[in-house]
Amino acid sequence: MIKINKNFENLQKNYLFVEMGKRIKAYQGKYPQAKIIKLGIGDVTLPLCSTVINAMHEAVDEMSKKETFKGYGPSNGYEFLRKAVSESYVKYGIEIDKNEVYISDGAKSDTANIMDIFDISGDVLIPDPAYPVYVDSSIISGRKIRFAKANQENNFLPMPDYSIDPSLIYICSPNNPTGSVYSKEQLKKWVDYAVDKKAIIIFDAAYEPFIVDEDLPHSIYEIENAKKCAIEVCSFSKGAGFTGIRCAYTIVPSEIQIDGKKVSDVWMRRQSCKFNGASYITQKAAFAALSENGRKETKEMIDYYRRNAKVLVDTMKKLCIWHVGGENSPYIWIKCPNNMKSWDFFDLLLEKANIVGTPGSGFGESGEGYFRFSSFGNYEDVLEAASRFEKLVF
Amino acid sequence: MIKINKNFENLQKNYLFVEMGKRIKAYQGKYPQAKIIKLGIGDVTLPLCSTVINAMHEAVDEMSKKETFKGYGPSNGYEFLRKAVSESYVKYGIEIDKNEVYISDGAKSDTANIMDIFDISGDVLIPDPAYPVYVDSSIISGRKIRFAKANQENNFLPMPDYSIDPSLIYICSPNNPTGSVYSKEQLKKWVDYAVDKKAIIIFDAAYEPFIVDEDLPHSIYEIENAKKCAIEVCSFSKGAGFTGIRCAYTIVPSEIQIDGKKVSDVWMRRQSCKFNGASYITQKAAFAALSENGRKETKEMIDYYRRNAKVLVDTMKKLCIWHVGGENSPYIWIKCPNNMKSWDFFDLLLEKANIVGTPGSGFGESGEGYFRFSSFGNYEDVLEAASRFEKLVF
Repeated sequence: MIKINKNFENLQKNYLFVEMGKRIKAYQGKYPQAKIIKLGIGDVTLPLCSTVINAMHEAVDEMSKKETFKGYGPSNGYEFLRKAVSESYVKYGIEIDKNEVYISDGAKSDTANIMDIFDISGDVLIPDPAYPVYVDSSIISGRKIRFAKANQENNFLPMPDYSIDPSLIYICSPNNPTGSVYSKEQLKKWVDYAVDKKAIIIFDAAYEPFIVDEDLPHSIYEIENAKKCAIEVCSFSKGAGFTGIRCAYTIVPSEIQIDGKKVSDVWMRRQSCKFNGASYITQKAAFAALSENGRKETKEMIDYYRRNAKVLVDTMKKLCIWHVGGENSPYIWIKCPNNMKSWDFFDLLLEKANIVGTPGSGFGESGEGYFRFSSFGNYEDVLEAASRFEKLVF
Repeated sequence: MIKINKNFENLQKNYLFVEMGKRIKAYQGKYPQAKIIKLGIGDVTLPLCSTVINAMHEAVDEMSKKETFKGYGPSNGYEFLRKAVSESYVKYGIEIDKNEVYISDGAKSDTANIMDIFDISGDVLIPDPAYPVYVDSSIISGRKIRFAKANQENNFLPMPDYSIDPSLIYICSPNNPTGSVYSKEQLKKWVDYAVDKKAIIIFDAAYEPFIVDEDLPHSIYEIENAKKCAIEVCSFSKGAGFTGIRCAYTIVPSEIQIDGKKVSDVWMRRQSCKFNGASYITQKAAFAALSENGRKETKEMIDYYRRNAKVLVDTMKKLCIWHVGGENSPYIWIKCPNNMKSWDFFDLLLEKANIVGTPGSGFGESGEGYFRFSSFGNYEDVLEAASRFEKLVF
């Protein structure tokens, strides 16, 4: 007799963005004329750059001719892309072998699927607040979660707690949802902790392209010993605008061994069993994004979003609203004015200013009373939102 | 302390096609001049049809303009594609709602991932031989497997065994690897069995487009009560040549309930947590493949492969070699001549005729002594392979 995986009962009923969508739809239904500005979901809005577009047209043409047609690709991705990714680490003084690079259809899939290869017995340490996927996929697989509480005191950058013995540690820097970024010294403490606890760090670097401060680490492998304990997940979604194209990569250093087993071999086995590789056209697009021209053009996109972020940061500064992020991240994380709760502030902002942001409590208990703005919108809209926000708060 | 998921130790060491690749590479290294004809892996070789190519160029162009750019899509797929898929069932007299359709990046992912939503306590019934993904993903998740033995007596179409109490049942028809196809009467017995045992059937219909006999079912939903117990997984890989493009769909009927819970809701929750939708360009390509012109053009591709299959079937008939498949399937499953073992025949065929096929034993114990040919190659190559085969066997 079949039964449902009972762990699903332990999930929160609605995925954050579904609930937001419902409230927006209800409001828009009542006030169809309202010009709602969405600074909620972390989705890009700028079109793909021309180098990427050209590469995709070429790849499509390859698929139209027998001589150049591509069927199944390697489940870990084409070598041309793995090589380009490995070379992209050289500028940070990091050596990654192309065989340590695993291409996939998204960082979401990878951060969730990587759990498959680890025993469910150990605790998972997840920052609170966090990207909901870490929590939900832990729950679905029946793992016990411990939270590393982020708050104003630690600037939303929680540090290791030696009284906990985690087996898996999720770290996201630049952070989603808070936009805060760990320094090298802070990450070093996490790496030391992981080595000490014989734990694996899953380092989500999806927002790495937004880092401009030269002192901040783009990759966890800038930290000594990280190759012994850290798996890094990175994405083309935010840096190159690929949210609709679907491409990410995960680095599993060959040095990471557990009981004499290479973790990279187990991941390869998992991927070749349950995944058939990312689309060829997508991989050619990602390859183009990593080219010299691709990098120039995607940097312009990032600069555009960073200008948006600056408008929001400046507004918060002007209004003396406590915030982090926005400087090396597309996200700005604010404390809700007047000690409001996150969803109350969501409703207020939607109804009184027609602005959509993301309630901090949707990312975990410690997010209650906070709110996330995303800078992926139109510049003009962000200016307008900032102006409405000022009027509302004053 | 982190541990590896120990279930991985129970997997066979090498994935079938990896081992084949190694042996081919070793042979080609020794004999670089050998013109090896590959009738092994089930990968398509014809380029994509023009309707699909045009649709992808258009989709790429949409991604280049801000007005038409697409970011994250729905994790269950765009409505335009779900609607087109649901309409594709009408010709079989089947009513599928667009919300019962879940678009993904591949049937491999779906047949493996669907397990996530079910409790691991129940037994999984899998035909032997079978597509390795059913077995491997069951093992990885720690499930107990029971096999439904296929053999010459049952024409490689095993039927229900009431002494077993499975919770999940994998059925693939037209079958990979054997090419055999269940009749409606046979499938009815499986559906009755599943209803009786309160089990769920995962029906893999990836090779459905190859069915030409009008009496054979294209979908399990042609069978009464199937909507109460069967989830159908289908793919654009073989029917439209999308192995490098990555698109599949899974039907989860809203009628399937377990303990008052809609299975479709649980699947949607799983997908929205661990998957971010298929590439927009891929989905536009799939939509084009389902259009009237797309269907005409993909039918020509299938006819091309069917002509190959006929050459192989005719050869086996002529040589009086026992076989199934090849008529409503791209695969021909033969008994190895002279009672040879599968890998011995693989080596013989590679070394003496420079032909690559797939050892039946790679698909399970009951495949020992059998061999799979795929008809996805060039027509001229298939003719040449048939001629070499004849010479070798006589």
